[in-house]
Parts: sequence; C-alpha cells; structure tokens
Amino acid sequence: MSLRLHAPVVLPCDPSCSVLRDAVVDVVDGRITYVGGAADAPAFDGEVRRLSGLLLPGLVNTHAHSPMTVLRGLGSDLPLLRWLKEQMWPNEAKMTAADVGVGMLLGAVEMLRHGVTTSAEMYFHGPELVSSILAVGSRVVFGSAILDLPGLSWQSMTSEITTWIDADGLRFGPGERIELAFGPHSAYTLTPSMLTAVAEEARARDALLMVHVAESPEEDIAQRAEYGSVPALLKASDVLGGRVLSAHSVHLSDDDIALYASYGVGVAHCPGSNAKLASGIARVPALLQAGVNVGLGTDGPASNDDLDLFEEARLAAMFARVSTMDATALGAAQALLMATRGGAAALGRDDIGALEAGRWADVVHIDVDDPAFATGLDAPDEQLLANLVWASGARRVTDVWVAGDHVVAGGESTRVDRREAQAGVTAVAQRLRTT
Amino acid sequence: MSLRLHAPVVLPCDPSCSVLRDAVVDVVDGRITYVGGAADAPAFDGEVRRLSGLLLPGLVNTHAHSPMTVLRGLGSDLPLLRWLKEQMWPNEAKMTAADVGVGMLLGAVEMLRHGVTTSAEMYFHGPELVSSILAVGSRVVFGSAILDLPGLSWQSMTSEITTWIDADGLRFGPGERIELAFGPHSAYTLTPSMLTAVAEEARARDALLMVHVAESPEEDIAQRAEYGSVPALLKASDVLGGRVLSAHSVHLSDDDIALYASYGVGVAHCPGSNAKLASGIARVPALLQAGVNVGLGTDGPASNDDLDLFEEARLAAMFARVSTMDATALGAAQALLMATRGGAAALGRDDIGALEAGRWADVVHIDVDDPAFATGLDAPDEQLLANLVWASGARRVTDVWVAGDHVVAGGESTRVDRREAQAGVTAVAQRLRTT
Repeated sequence: MSLRLHAPVVLPCDPSCSVLRDAVVDVVDGRITYVGGAADAPAFDGEVRRLSGLLLPGLVNTHAHSPMTVLRGLGSDLPLLRWLKEQMWPNEAKMTAADVGVGMLLGAVEMLRHGVTTSAEMYFHGPELVSSILAVGSRVVFGSAILDLPGLSWQSMTSEITTWIDADGLRFGPGERIELAFGPHSAYTLTPSMLTAVAEEARARDALLMVHVAESPEEDIAQRAEYGSVPALLKASDVLGGRVLSAHSVHLSDDDIALYASYGVGVAHCPGSNAKLASGIARVPALLQAGVNVGLGTDGPASNDDLDLFEEARLAAMFARVSTMDATALGAAQALLMATRGGAAALGRDDIGALEAGRWADVVHIDVDDPAFATGLDAPDEQLLANLVWASGARRVTDVWVAGDHVVAGGESTRVDRREAQAGVTAVAQRLRTT
Repeated sequence: MSLRLHAPVVLPCDPSCSVLRDAVVDVVDGRITYVGGAADAPAFDGEVRRLSGLLLPGLVNTHAHSPMTVLRGLGSDLPLLRWLKEQMWPNEAKMTAADVGVGMLLGAVEMLRHGVTTSAEMYFHGPELVSSILAVGSRVVFGSAILDLPGLSWQSMTSEITTWIDADGLRFGPGERIELAFGPHSAYTLTPSMLTAVAEEARARDALLMVHVAESPEEDIAQRAEYGSVPALLKASDVLGGRVLSAHSVHLSDDDIALYASYGVGVAHCPGSNAKLASGIARVPALLQAGVNVGLGTDGPASNDDLDLFEEARLAAMFARVSTMDATALGAAQALLMATRGGAAALGRDDIGALEAGRWADVVHIDVDDPAFATGLDAPDEQLLANLVWASGARRVTDVWVAGDHVVAGGESTRVDRREAQAGVTAVAQRLRTT
C-alpha cells in the first residue's frame, strides 16, 4: 500500500517544530518513507491525495481512562478523593468487561475525531478494551491497572498481564496498534514491595510501567512522611531504571525533577484534570528545562471531560504561563510538541508522534476553512502555529490515518458508527444509574 | 411574529440554574412571553419548532475587542505590555475604519456560531463596527475606546460618542441590538481628571462605562503608589456610582472587592487572556462571595484566541478551583450562569442573558448528537450541566435566535457568508503584513 499526502502546510513535529510549505508525506505499508517539500520529493508510484489544510502527526494522549465515557459528568464538583470514593469506585465496581469495551469504543472514536491516534490507557478488562481499539483502528498503550483489592490481589492482576505479554508479545495487531504495559496504580494504593515486584516484571519484558504520582497534596501524606516524596519512594523501591511513565506528577520538588531527569522517567501532564479536581499545577517549565520528556494526558472523561488533547495543549501553555507569571514560559510550538513527539518520548516510543521516515504513518489533517485560520496560510510560521494551537484546536480535524489506514474521513470514523457507539454508552450509563 | 421553541431540555439560567424537561420557550415580537414545561404551557398560535437538544440563553461576552480577528495569532508568545507595544498598537495604527468593520464581521459570525449573542466591544470606528453587527444580526454593547493620543485627544474621542448617543439614543436597531457606551481605556493611559470627566458624561446618559482595571501586576505601578489601587483611584475620581464594568480586575485586594460590591461595579473576567498573557488569576470566588456581578470575557482574538465563551466558562471554573485548591470553588452551574445571566448583570442589563418572560428572545440550541451527551438526556440535572459545560461546549451549537430572528441555522450564519467574511479578514491581514 502506497499513499502520498500532499498539503499546503505540513508540521512534522521535529524537535524545532518546522513548518513545511507545499509538502508531502509518503507512506508505504503503513510507515512513513519521506516527508518534505513537494518540489524535492522522490518519484512516487501510488495513490496521491491532495489536502487543503495542515498535516501533522496523530496526537499522543499519555494518560487516560477512556472507558469512563460511561461515567462522564458524574460528581463533577467534588475534589479528587471524594470524587473517587463516592462516585467513581462504586460505579466502576458495577462495570462489566463488556461495559469497558463499550466505553472504550466511544472514547476511541471521540479521540480520533480530535486527532488523537494513540492513548495510554490505565484500566481494567484489557481484552475488551483492546478489541474496541482494533475495531476503531486507533492505537493504544494498555497499562493494565494493578491494585490490591479484597478478592482480587495485586499478584493475580500482575500475572494476568505478564501471561498476556508472554503469549502475544509486547506489541501486536495490524500496524502494531496494541502495546501492553503495567499499570501499578500508585504508591498510596500499593506498598513499596508490591511496586518493586511489578517493576521487576515490567523491566524483564522492556514493558512500560505507568503509575499515578503526586497528583493531589493529600493522597500520599504517609508515603511522603516516610520517603520524602513519591519519586524518592520509587527510587528506593527500585522502580526506576526501566521505561517509567509518571502520570500527573503535580507536586514535585527540584530533587524529584532531577531524579526523573537522571532516570529518564517520562511525565504525563494532565492540566485539565488537575485543575478541575483542584489538584494543583505541575511544574512543566522546570521539567522541560531539566530535560524530562513531558507528554500531555486528558485523564479520564469523568474528570476532564472531553478527551480533547488540543485543549490540554492550550491549558498546558496557559498554566505554565500563569503559574510562573511569564508569558514566554511555554509557547505554541512547545505545546504542540508535547502533544505529539514529547508524548511519544514520554511513553518511550520513537515510532509514533512525528512525521518522520521510519515512523508509523499516524497523520491528522486539519481543514483551514475556519475563522481560526482567516489571517491566511501565508502568515509567518509562528502565527500559523498560534492559530492552530490557540484558536483552531480539534474543531476542524477532517481526516485521520493510522499506520496509513484512513480511519476518519469527513470528521467521522470510517470503521465504527458513532451514533451506535453513543447509544451503547447511553445504555450502560442508564443501567449504572438504576442498579 | 410568534414562535414556540420546544425541546427536551431548557436551561433558562434563572438564579438557581434550573433544568426544565420537555419545555417550551414562547416568543412574540422578539421578546420571550413564556418559559416552562410543555404540559403547562398556554395555548399558542404561531410557528412551533421542535428541537432535539438543549435550549439556553445566548451567551454574553462582557469584554472583547473582536475586530482584532485580523491580528489573530500575532506575537502569541509575548507578555502583555510587549505584546501591546510591539505587535498590537503598531498594527492597529494601520487599521482603517473599513478594516474594523471587516474584522468585526468575522468576529460576530464566529461568536454566534459559539452561541455568543451579545458582546461588549471596546474598540474604535463605531459606525463600521455597529454596521457589521447589524449585518450579522447579533447584539453589541459598543464601548467607544477613549485614549489620549497625539493628534487625537480624549476630549474629541469622548465627544464623538456623546454626540452619537445624543443623536441616536442609548439603544437602537432592530430588537435594540446596539447599545452605545463609554470605553475609557484605563487608569494608566488616562489621568484621574480625564476619567472623572468621561464618567460624568456616561452617568448623565445612564450609559455603561467600561474600563480595564488591574490586568497585569506591572501596568499601573504609578497609580497604585498614589492611590493604593485602581479601584481606589476610580472611587477618588468619582468614576463609580453609575453603570461601571471593570474588565480583567485580576489584582484586587479585599478592600477593592468590598468597594466593587458596595458600588455595584460589574466585573468582566477574562481567564483565557489573563493566563495566556501571564497576567494572573482573578479572585472570582471572592468576588462572587461578595455579591459582585461577574461575567466572562474572551478579550480580543489576538490574546485568546478563539472567541469561545464556553471555553472561558470552563477556564473560569478550572482557575477558580486550582487557585483556591478547592474543587467546589466554582461549579458547572455557576460557570454557565456567569456566561449568561451574570454577564448581563455585569453589563447592567436585565433584558438579555436568561430565558425569562419579558427578556429578548436570544436563544441557543445545542444538539446532543455528540459523545459529550452520550450518558443520556435523562441523566440527573447536575450531570447534564456538567456534560454541557465540561464536555460539549460550543461544538454542537446548531441554531441561534436573536430577538427571535433565526440568525444561525445548521451551525452557519443565515445572514452573512462565512467564507466571504474569512476572505475579507485574509485580505486585511495580508495588507497589514506587507505595508
């Protein structure tokens, strides 16, 4: 399969956030083979599609619990711990494996329409979740949630995912759409020795370990009293060293940040969720300055609520600026890179998150028939990036390809009927309300 | 002209933010005559339209400079004063009256598509600005900007608007779409005696006075040194007492807030602009607690950048929560009320901002064929409000009426060709870049 996408503007999301004019993205067998000016492009034998707007890499959502579309809007005015204990956990206890599949199906459709081609999901019921991803044609890093619950031990949850990885491999599915990972929930729900054991299993398989860290000021008081901080606890427990993604990571000290930089820990920054739940504002400029790979996460649709990573990019820039009182603290280009390349790096992936030869052809097209771009496609690069990040966002995503497959056209999924996916969620939400 | 709008959910934006089910909004000659359950509605003789989603009042944008659509995205990574001096003012000096009309036309079209039916515009070239509003069919409070510039004195700017008001009246146009007001720019660009004189003219006509107050920490150092604060300066200069709208108002003390409450000063809270320009986070929960009428403002599209007041409502809630570290500081209902009823009150208007008998029929329909509403229209009131405010926002605005006129249908203006409006802005932006 050979495909050339040709557009007036291509944003490859290389480290300097170049803006290419009149450029093409060539795709062979799902991988990108060339990105650059149309005039310099190699001869090409295959389907050529002319697009009218901007091409950019599919966005990478580094922290989500997307099956929670079935709980969207519940308890929206509660703080984190009450919201979890009073609304989320009781409802999640009633959710079946099939419900998770239903919730993920809509979440994946919704994210694709917002240009998000990959999400890192920490959740339960992997087979059903993965099956929805395959149906939609998007991409997932599934971090199987590990807790220690009455009747469901952390060991059984851990062995479930190790067994699966040992059987199917770390990555599988068409275009390697599925990656399996370990999701030990947090240092306040698991003991240090549990975390150590899970990390050993992950490291032995070169699997990603994703964990909630220092989200709110209250959650880990006991852990901080003993270890100083959760990052210090993770180091002391031999959790760092492999591929580690630290979600939220709002309340970090300078030492924590230096530790993360030295161990190559990635951070999933979730500004919308952290603000809505009054958890705080993460120190993103300091993290970036230290060289930490920072990606963006929507968190679950019950705490965000719209699975729109473009909005998280805007929020990241806003929060970085207002928390430092420095309007230069985070620019449009940096925000866009966090949503794409930086997110991939935070997940320890170099095969997604940028339009570069060798990476998977996960590509988003943004139409420019919108007031956001009325100052013109011939505006200076900086202005065009500002128009995309600050004004347009996800509103005009018309087409999305994942591994070269055309999974969104005209703003709608080509694989799944969106209304049926919505109706599925409606039925689950109604059942959860009444049982 | 008689029209009944009948929908499964009506949000009248009364003080308790009721959620009415299976309800109607009756309109006669542009004004609302009845809002309530369909079963209890009076007999009605006129056109009946069945809608499938949510009806709510048109949003009220209390602070904007919308003609700046022609400058959108310029200098997006600069702090307030450099952004003004290096990018905005030099470009604005090149803008003609016709350019202002072109910029306002697109801004008004764009706002209507986001459900904003009224905007308070502090800008120049009133006749051209107003003419664009009349063409689009939306509503404006035009606060003629007053500065003291070489060759253009504050007296001449003031007498221009007094002459206009004395000729045409304070409100005019079909459905009283135009209100004229005074826009003395700020206490750092005008002296106290100039502010006193302008306020006298405004009060004599019961006109609104809109002024920028305490936006950034730097702008008014001299004024604060002399008077303590800008609100104190306004009081000492006899500016308070009439209808006053204080824009931004980020850096207020408890005394300032008490002063505003006692004089009935309205506040236009602009969270997006204040964050992007690193100006700070306004003390909205304290203002609301003190009984100050707080509305929301997008500010100009060069500092925001999308004229989306639903986004400002979300941001207001996020910033209120994260700045107080209290997730209950501002809920979905309060945020929605600030965008509607509260905004009208901040402008000193009781004829817009709510679906109530006697007010103008400025009505927005939000379609619910969207993942945001997949948990169902039969969800509890609180969840439905959360779905609207936190997840859907402006994305699914399909229809808008202003004074009963159907000005947006199927998400597009019925009065103005959006693409022509965009092309007009493109031409102006290109000329400003090259001259």
